[in-house]
Amino acid sequence: MALIVQKYGGTSVADADKIKNVARRIIARKKSGDQVVVVVSAMGDTTDELIRLAYQITERPDERELDVLLSTGEVVSSTLLAMALSDMGYEAISLSGAQAGIQTDANHSRARILGIDAKRIVSELKQGKIVIVAGFQGISQEMDVTTLGRGGSDTTAVALAASLGAKVCERYTDVEGVYTADPGLVPEARQLTEIGYEEMLELATYGSKAIHPRAVELGELFKIPILVASSFTDNPGTLIHGEVSMEVRNKVRSIAYDLDVAKITVVGVPDRPGIAAALFVPLAKAGISVDTIVQNASINNITDLTFTVAKSEIDKAMKVVEPIANSIGAKECVSDPRLGKVSIIGTGMQNTPGFAARMFSTFSEEGINIQLITTSEIRITCIIDESRVKDAVRALHRVFEVTSKVNQT
Amino acid sequence: MALIVQKYGGTSVADADKIKNVARRIIARKKSGDQVVVVVSAMGDTTDELIRLAYQITERPDERELDVLLSTGEVVSSTLLAMALSDMGYEAISLSGAQAGIQTDANHSRARILGIDAKRIVSELKQGKIVIVAGFQGISQEMDVTTLGRGGSDTTAVALAASLGAKVCERYTDVEGVYTADPGLVPEARQLTEIGYEEMLELATYGSKAIHPRAVELGELFKIPILVASSFTDNPGTLIHGEVSMEVRNKVRSIAYDLDVAKITVVGVPDRPGIAAALFVPLAKAGISVDTIVQNASINNITDLTFTVAKSEIDKAMKVVEPIANSIGAKECVSDPRLGKVSIIGTGMQNTPGFAARMFSTFSEEGINIQLITTSEIRITCIIDESRVKDAVRALHRVFEVTSKVNQT
Repeated sequence: MALIVQKYGGTSVADADKIKNVARRIIARKKSGDQVVVVVSAMGDTTDELIRLAYQITERPDERELDVLLSTGEVVSSTLLAMALSDMGYEAISLSGAQAGIQTDANHSRARILGIDAKRIVSELKQGKIVIVAGFQGISQEMDVTTLGRGGSDTTAVALAASLGAKVCERYTDVEGVYTADPGLVPEARQLTEIGYEEMLELATYGSKAIHPRAVELGELFKIPILVASSFTDNPGTLIHGEVSMEVRNKVRSIAYDLDVAKITVVGVPDRPGIAAALFVPLAKAGISVDTIVQNASINNITDLTFTVAKSEIDKAMKVVEPIANSIGAKECVSDPRLGKVSIIGTGMQNTPGFAARMFSTFSEEGINIQLITTSEIRITCIIDESRVKDAVRALHRVFEVTSKVNQT
Repeated sequence: MALIVQKYGGTSVADADKIKNVARRIIARKKSGDQVVVVVSAMGDTTDELIRLAYQITERPDERELDVLLSTGEVVSSTLLAMALSDMGYEAISLSGAQAGIQTDANHSRARILGIDAKRIVSELKQGKIVIVAGFQGISQEMDVTTLGRGGSDTTAVALAASLGAKVCERYTDVEGVYTADPGLVPEARQLTEIGYEEMLELATYGSKAIHPRAVELGELFKIPILVASSFTDNPGTLIHGEVSMEVRNKVRSIAYDLDVAKITVVGVPDRPGIAAALFVPLAKAGISVDTIVQNASINNITDLTFTVAKSEIDKAMKVVEPIANSIGAKECVSDPRLGKVSIIGTGMQNTPGFAARMFSTFSEEGINIQLITTSEIRITCIIDESRVKDAVRALHRVFEVTSKVNQT
């Protein structure tokens, strides 16, 4: 008998029928003899609706109160799922984050899990019950409800799997698995049966919606295999784990893209210590997440500093940056809100020559201008005009033959 | 500096603007120097919507899970109210029933308050905060969330007022106060400035929607004055308390009515011990609430047994009663689903002759047939045809001069 942690996303529990469908899937797993702990997100758009409600009251909702408010979304879905299971003849109990022993720091709206006291879960499992845990939430040492921020429910599930010594963490949503590229964009894109943590981390960070990178990191740290699959089909999904077949290493595994990219360049910045801090500390304080940062080689102690933010944050970011640029003696600030980024991802890429060259020459043949380049050990990312992103993904998918036999696992 | 407990009903917090309105009213009270504890109901129809959601999942929702589900409604409204107060510059904190120390028995969906451990509330008040408590909910000794059933939030408020030694419990909703009769029915109906606990209890039980009888009982037990008033106007409302001016005693204070009455008569019942139990125990087990019960004097050891239920329960009740009636040798069962009841209420009514006689002769003059009569020390109730209820209320209001000078306080 193994212990399995399953996680169902908001679209999988969006209404009563979908919740009953999830209950049937859980029962099928329970019948096969496993112990099952289930983590659920809030139903459909519930969280967004609660946030909207809070902002109807005030532009600056109290953080503690906002966390308590948002935590109700997952409590609702977890009780409904427990009811559905009971109705189908299986003993089940819903637990809030606090009841499940999810202990976090006190950083409201972006709390980190400090540890899990799984006593209550273990005791309910021993009684033969299916345990449903409200995702995305925990409790601080001051006994206040906290929420975990983006990717919160994925993180709850992997953390629980680690804490309980689960065999696998299964993450169900409306996505069938991890693909070599977006199948909506590249018809010949192929679903991967497995992928390594590192590659998935890059994919998740650089555009794949299959799972939040925070959960992948945690899975890697505690060596928890994570299955990404759909709750609406019987497609076996993609397993994220550490022991990927050797022959698929040193290949491009997947092409990722992201259309939500805007760029700000501070032109003619005096190149002296403290300039980066002067710009990026106020941006962080304003809650603006900065993605790629590139600084050109300095000529006569004058340099250009370019960084990217989400499109929705470009105006806010310019308001923060412009007065600072003035005060540090920069020449001007220019912004471009219509960009996208395209990445090729695969282990050992940096050790294998030629990947970057092939990527750049593909762009050149397609007449696509590269605006910024960043690389990691297993990823090369180019920022290009938003209107050419789809062409770039299709061309790279063809050139790197991610659909060919040798890539299949 | 006094401590005040305020309670706002669902219509008073139905949307963001109404919540802000409530926040302004709380602040006005806080500014006058009082400490304020506020109990809130769920917004508008939230509770009904959550119940609907549960019944979309199953016809028999698990009781524990249903209570957790329903408790989220009051958590949502309490956090939003706390946010509104913070936004207006007043420190506030929302507490769930569990955090507020509302300890109940484990009877899910109809839990009774066993006691209140008000440590947390007292500590937050000492820090100068306005404390918002989610009504209608508590926690059992097994640390499971419970709900208090009908009148739950009113009960939370009065129980908190008793536990904290509050000067008064103010109950705000969309009703302006307690009237001599329904002003929609009797244009000359007058709002009472005060009323005794006992009279209010009869009124609340016999049709007035101003406050739940359970909360009135608790108020009487702990001698907590309860103000019933509107959150939308500055009408001073009606004070329910124990020291009502002497000259208004021994008078009809108010006419109550209820249109939700159906009658079942078991005809020709052998009059022997155990017959009442044989009928009413199965009805209670089926969850059917029986109101008035009348048994006629027995002739030749054969009697008729009549009782009333809510109209919505008549079919269910007949299904329970008919086989029992057969098995105990009754002649037949007849039902009438189109009845209503009208009551006159005032202290000392039974000690003062003539009230019942005047009530019956009024009905006679109006040509209204009385089907059943029941009385208490301070109430006389007649069950009549539903189509004549409004005429009866108007006539009684006129005959008993509840609008006249001597009744004013």
